[in-house]
Amino acid sequence: MSIDHTHDPQASSWVAGADAHADFPVQNLPLGIFSPPGARPRIGTAIGDHILDLAALATAGGLGALAPDLRAALGAPRLNPLFALDAPDRRHLRHAVFAALTDRAGHSRVAPHLRPAADCALHLPFAIGDYTDFYVGIHHATAIGRLLRPDHPLLANYKYVPIAYHGRASSVQVSGAAVIRPRGQVKTGDGPEYRACERLDYEVELGLWIAGGNALGEVVPISAASARIGGVCLLNDWSARDLQVWEYQPLGPFLAKNFLTTVSPWVVTGDALAPFRVAPMPRPAGDPAPLPYLADDEDARTGGLAITLEARLASRAMREGGLAPQCLSRVRAADAMYWTPAQMVAHHTANGCNLGPGDLLGTGTLSGAGPGSEGSLMELTRAGSQPIALASGESRRFLEDGDEVTLHARAERAGWRSIGFGPCTGTVGAAR
Amino acid sequence: MSIDHTHDPQASSWVAGADAHADFPVQNLPLGIFSPPGARPRIGTAIGDHILDLAALATAGGLGALAPDLRAALGAPRLNPLFALDAPDRRHLRHAVFAALTDRAGHSRVAPHLRPAADCALHLPFAIGDYTDFYVGIHHATAIGRLLRPDHPLLANYKYVPIAYHGRASSVQVSGAAVIRPRGQVKTGDGPEYRACERLDYEVELGLWIAGGNALGEVVPISAASARIGGVCLLNDWSARDLQVWEYQPLGPFLAKNFLTTVSPWVVTGDALAPFRVAPMPRPAGDPAPLPYLADDEDARTGGLAITLEARLASRAMREGGLAPQCLSRVRAADAMYWTPAQMVAHHTANGCNLGPGDLLGTGTLSGAGPGSEGSLMELTRAGSQPIALASGESRRFLEDGDEVTLHARAERAGWRSIGFGPCTGTVGAAR
Repeated sequence: MSIDHTHDPQASSWVAGADAHADFPVQNLPLGIFSPPGARPRIGTAIGDHILDLAALATAGGLGALAPDLRAALGAPRLNPLFALDAPDRRHLRHAVFAALTDRAGHSRVAPHLRPAADCALHLPFAIGDYTDFYVGIHHATAIGRLLRPDHPLLANYKYVPIAYHGRASSVQVSGAAVIRPRGQVKTGDGPEYRACERLDYEVELGLWIAGGNALGEVVPISAASARIGGVCLLNDWSARDLQVWEYQPLGPFLAKNFLTTVSPWVVTGDALAPFRVAPMPRPAGDPAPLPYLADDEDARTGGLAITLEARLASRAMREGGLAPQCLSRVRAADAMYWTPAQMVAHHTANGCNLGPGDLLGTGTLSGAGPGSEGSLMELTRAGSQPIALASGESRRFLEDGDEVTLHARAERAGWRSIGFGPCTGTVGAAR
Repeated sequence: MSIDHTHDPQASSWVAGADAHADFPVQNLPLGIFSPPGARPRIGTAIGDHILDLAALATAGGLGALAPDLRAALGAPRLNPLFALDAPDRRHLRHAVFAALTDRAGHSRVAPHLRPAADCALHLPFAIGDYTDFYVGIHHATAIGRLLRPDHPLLANYKYVPIAYHGRASSVQVSGAAVIRPRGQVKTGDGPEYRACERLDYEVELGLWIAGGNALGEVVPISAASARIGGVCLLNDWSARDLQVWEYQPLGPFLAKNFLTTVSPWVVTGDALAPFRVAPMPRPAGDPAPLPYLADDEDARTGGLAITLEARLASRAMREGGLAPQCLSRVRAADAMYWTPAQMVAHHTANGCNLGPGDLLGTGTLSGAGPGSEGSLMELTRAGSQPIALASGESRRFLEDGDEVTLHARAERAGWRSIGFGPCTGTVGAAR
């Protein structure tokens, strides 16, 4: 990924308010799927408080000459065809959109294709082929492991293997989807019962959207792995802890997770994130070096992401009382991830597993090393044993009906215009 | 599911050899996707050594009047639209195809749409949304558990929870796909290494193809669960045991499984299997009763499947020496499955997880209680410690390059014409 004029912190758009917008200045240009009132879903980019209809603009010639494949991909109701193209095609699109939104002379041609975001619905950006959730948040893995094994919280494989498991693609929904409290088997003193989850939790994660494809049997070398990450979103891996603890042996989490996974609608592209690539977490002294298939000099220098994530909670009482959402955790991805996105992709394909455009990789819960950075209630409340206090006077061990959890994130680095992801939110509703 | 004249064991087709065909007599009529030479994939049914082109026959009017949705679904290159329809639509289709293949008066209208199966390519029958693998084979779970925990091989949740985990949909391939020996991390005495798998195994499973859809949050009650199983296939869950033992804690199998899963191309429908529904495995005395959401009187009487599965191995030396494939195991599904297909579906959706048409559920390895019924080499060779002898004079602990593994199965019950599934096969090739 290269840094070019589209990252110029002085660049500004003629769209009113875009420069002042925390998440979507012209340096961002995230891709997503939206529908204007009464119209079908189509591809757009967020600019300030507006959405630019890229399909319509391309058809009207407002993006200049486009390769036929790129033009066709822009007409799709999902981002999959666009992310099946080669990276230079998507970079060409970024440059064309940047020009359209910064060139004041072209304003009259472009402006008719802007829609107020508040009027539009946002949709899942991809038809998700497969969803894989990793476990690269080492402080999270350590904290969870400590609850089970105080003496050796991390298992022996953790520092060799980027641990992951397959998630459920069908229950991945876009931000705003209802969080229906799941029912399931829970172990009680009188034996297992089927009942409503009582230990509902969230997990703060980044989601990585795969671009391009590798055939089954084809390994993606670590040097080529970063280019397979087409974009990044926020991901909330809602979790039913009481179901999980009873079901997960020996094959891993299942119904505790697959009732809902929420992603933010805007795909912040790998190109937009180029200035925010930083050194990944240094391996603590004494840790093993990554095996050669996971080692790459460039990745060791720039495989970390300077993205700060926050989780905020607003209970029903807080919202009704006009209280602001309460920040529960704040963490920088590069300080939480033991394995880089490129290492995740290289490992996933090390056995020849085929990844396709629109596949989703979750990082796993991102927690920091210290207090205030715990990416789940399981960690914040020590498995429910130490409730946290809310500004409303309420307390929480786990989520209650009416609780609204929202993830936010910003890519921030000195000298660059920071960009954001937009919210990833969900409100807990009663079990059916 | 009802038993009707399409199950009459005396019924016969005018297609030459169909009655004598072990797998595909007119009582079967499995659905699949095939392509004649030089032509595009379309929907067909296997009849003896031929394939009937259902799309072409329907267009030519040879299936009588069809509802518009059914007609449209028959024109698709996958079975997903057909399995999105209501069950009566697919039953109507079965009756129409049965009539076309048994009514000798209509021979001249139907015969032009028959193709010799040997001339056709077979494809994956569905675009798979999500693939879930269960663990309902209790003798398998016990045998594997005994290798790890001789004193209590089954974990405490096994007899309450139909254990399952998410598999990888993208690497599910149709019978015949190359089995490329995977590479991966293996723990050695000198620490982990990335190298070719040395403990490659197969697993004998049934695959259940989901029909219809339930919205996210909507639970499928056990009484309605059986109707959600549109058809059944054979499934080989190729497994890299040396990768698995190192990676699987704490989140379950991942790269040990997702390099390839093979399914048989023909979908033996729930309607075709109606006569072969038998009592499921009786719960041993002292076992807990299923929780109410998994209990159904009808399922307790007819939730078992009288399907006998076989795994056969032919090494390269055996094939070159003209030796027949060697049967490694033989087991009846109803004697191997602790949980029924309906219980699998009811459990999968008990938290509101949404299943859609073309989703695939594996049963997990089906092994019987005694010798000769072990559904994997892991069990047959006691984790490689007791090699088995092949007719060629070779021995096997795990699969070697050139080994061809083929699964076969037949639904068999006294008084009924038995039907088969066709082969599910793969040949191991060297690591790349």
